[in-house]
Amino acid sequence: MLNPARTVVELKELRALTGDENGAQRVAFTETWVKARNWFKEKLKELPVEVHQDAAGNLWATLKGKSSKELLIGGHIDSVPNGGWLDGCLNVVAGLEVLRRIAAEGVPPVTIRLVDWCDEEGARFGRSLFGSSAASGALVPDDVRNLTDRQGVKLVDAVAPHGIDLDRALDAQQELKNAAAYLELHIEQGPVLESLDLPMGVVLGTFGVERHTITFKGQAAHSGSTPMTHRRDALGGVSKLHLAIREIAIEHGGVCTVGKVTTEPGIVTAVVGEATMTLDQRHLDAAALEKMYVAAKAASERIAQDEKIEVNWKTLWRIQPFPFHPRLIELCDAAIQETCGTVHRLPSGPLHDAAEVCRAGVPTIMLFVQSLRGISHNKIEDTREEHLELSVAALDRLATKTIAWLSQ
Amino acid sequence: MLNPARTVVELKELRALTGDENGAQRVAFTETWVKARNWFKEKLKELPVEVHQDAAGNLWATLKGKSSKELLIGGHIDSVPNGGWLDGCLNVVAGLEVLRRIAAEGVPPVTIRLVDWCDEEGARFGRSLFGSSAASGALVPDDVRNLTDRQGVKLVDAVAPHGIDLDRALDAQQELKNAAAYLELHIEQGPVLESLDLPMGVVLGTFGVERHTITFKGQAAHSGSTPMTHRRDALGGVSKLHLAIREIAIEHGGVCTVGKVTTEPGIVTAVVGEATMTLDQRHLDAAALEKMYVAAKAASERIAQDEKIEVNWKTLWRIQPFPFHPRLIELCDAAIQETCGTVHRLPSGPLHDAAEVCRAGVPTIMLFVQSLRGISHNKIEDTREEHLELSVAALDRLATKTIAWLSQ
Repeated sequence: MLNPARTVVELKELRALTGDENGAQRVAFTETWVKARNWFKEKLKELPVEVHQDAAGNLWATLKGKSSKELLIGGHIDSVPNGGWLDGCLNVVAGLEVLRRIAAEGVPPVTIRLVDWCDEEGARFGRSLFGSSAASGALVPDDVRNLTDRQGVKLVDAVAPHGIDLDRALDAQQELKNAAAYLELHIEQGPVLESLDLPMGVVLGTFGVERHTITFKGQAAHSGSTPMTHRRDALGGVSKLHLAIREIAIEHGGVCTVGKVTTEPGIVTAVVGEATMTLDQRHLDAAALEKMYVAAKAASERIAQDEKIEVNWKTLWRIQPFPFHPRLIELCDAAIQETCGTVHRLPSGPLHDAAEVCRAGVPTIMLFVQSLRGISHNKIEDTREEHLELSVAALDRLATKTIAWLSQ
Repeated sequence: MLNPARTVVELKELRALTGDENGAQRVAFTETWVKARNWFKEKLKELPVEVHQDAAGNLWATLKGKSSKELLIGGHIDSVPNGGWLDGCLNVVAGLEVLRRIAAEGVPPVTIRLVDWCDEEGARFGRSLFGSSAASGALVPDDVRNLTDRQGVKLVDAVAPHGIDLDRALDAQQELKNAAAYLELHIEQGPVLESLDLPMGVVLGTFGVERHTITFKGQAAHSGSTPMTHRRDALGGVSKLHLAIREIAIEHGGVCTVGKVTTEPGIVTAVVGEATMTLDQRHLDAAALEKMYVAAKAASERIAQDEKIEVNWKTLWRIQPFPFHPRLIELCDAAIQETCGTVHRLPSGPLHDAAEVCRAGVPTIMLFVQSLRGISHNKIEDTREEHLELSVAALDRLATKTIAWLSQ
């Protein structure tokens, strides 16, 4: 029988073992991470599962079913430095509880696999989704080989002692060849569910992202001797575009953020000669994301003309949206409804391993459980215990519904 | 007879003596500054003038007239490091030429004094108008005593070898007791005259300044997981207030500048939690300056409310406007008209020693000559030679008119 309270106990066990006064310290490819994985492997020993690490360092526990079709449940035990106690490991531990319940009922109709993805956070080398992107085939080993950590250690050398040969990492793609569905439970890491006073939500997909640096060039000039009419104020570009992108986000139903502004020469007595801003745009719909990008670009050019300044865009990063599977959205909606009595549908702003599994063509779904204060990647990250227990129950219910769907 | 071409020759002499490939190096209280002053004193030896340094280090050359009423002509031979060849010294050298012309004509009706103010730029200790503010009585010796340069030398110790006892600096006030008018010719250091294609302008006064740091506090949040409606974007305060202060400047006929913006946490993936901006407001009219300040304050509070963020103001610096003397404005206007055939009236954004003399209650006026590209405090600072010659002639003509006015 499913015991959601045990999941909370085990999460606390893991916190005690791998956290300190500053939070979780399960950074991938460190001793604490190895300790967390060993703790997890000990738990798996009690179950009739085959356990192995794939070529990209992902840890798989397989409960053979009557069919070779596979239902995957996945999370990541790694954390950022000084991280929260739930980010990633919630689903590894909740998935363990679901696996116990299914295994206790005998051989399941389909094969059930629990995966602990390797280095979801990318905290040490700045490349997130390492293991899952190897499994999806999106990882380019040569792009990450020479990434270095703060001590100057290269990624290729840091992963080797953990049994990962970077040149073979893409062999992890084999792990997904029988995958028929993928479930991932995660804390929301945002304020939406808390603000609606709801314990859980169905995730519609992960946002696509357009990330750019935009530089406006005007003319630095003395703040006293230069009349307003003679100015080419580069900051005018930033201020107007910042306000414009907020409108664009609302109009298209996405999110747009200016997170950083810099000014040159940046002194109180000079009109800004050069101003730089970052722009991060996200949407679940690829066409809408493209529209937001085009609208921001057009706005920046119109503003530059009005302000008699120049504008230049530099792309930092782009990823397409990964909308989740329509049938799994329905099943997940029902599972949460039945567990919590109420449900909400929302997109995921942050990326997750689920995006990579989705990219690989596996029907994918995520469940979010409420985050207190919307905070994560911080030791004060938290979720109410009753919500954690509900989330384990909802994941279990979804697993049952998905197995039934796959068995049709 | 006045020889404006000689002024240009002498300015070039001074440049060769005290400049290098990076520009003028006549920083006050340095050897190069002493060298410049010695060069100037040699020139004065050819004239029937009494020369002395006052208690604040200002250098005075006095041509006794029939009356003890004094007409003062003032400038500063000191420069910023890597400065321009004209900023400050133009009027010292042009004043010398005017003094020659008057001295050659015999005893003048009023006493004529040429002053080289001590440390106008404040480049070494960050306190500008040292000598002139001592003469006006505005200097507070205890406020500047322990200012240090980059090498850790205190102002009080740096000025001593130059014959300045800081505790006696205010004795310089005596120098102004018979002053009846003060004339100062300066390069514009701004783009107005060049953009109007005019050689010279009458300066209406020096701007009053309101200088503040404004901080908006909102809530840092994940750029992906936080819907637009849930945000408290501190940068919204900066963008809106920046655009508002530009409108306020135009509405009130002053200038308002946001020169620097900083963002916290300042990363591409986070809504700005705290944003800081500088504000510099300037106006020639004290009431209008006050209105601009009040309007900006009110706008910041309205914006903070709209954005659901907090706003805090911190004053950096304030000075009142110093409008110049109405009769001298008329005389200066006529002198420039007669010399250049055309004239323009404009305020001075930068401060000058003239502001301190004006503060002391002496009828004061400045003349601006066109700056190329509006650039100063830089080795590329420049003015056309024909304009320099016109400016010497206009200063001379204004001296004649002022002497006549004082002799009435």
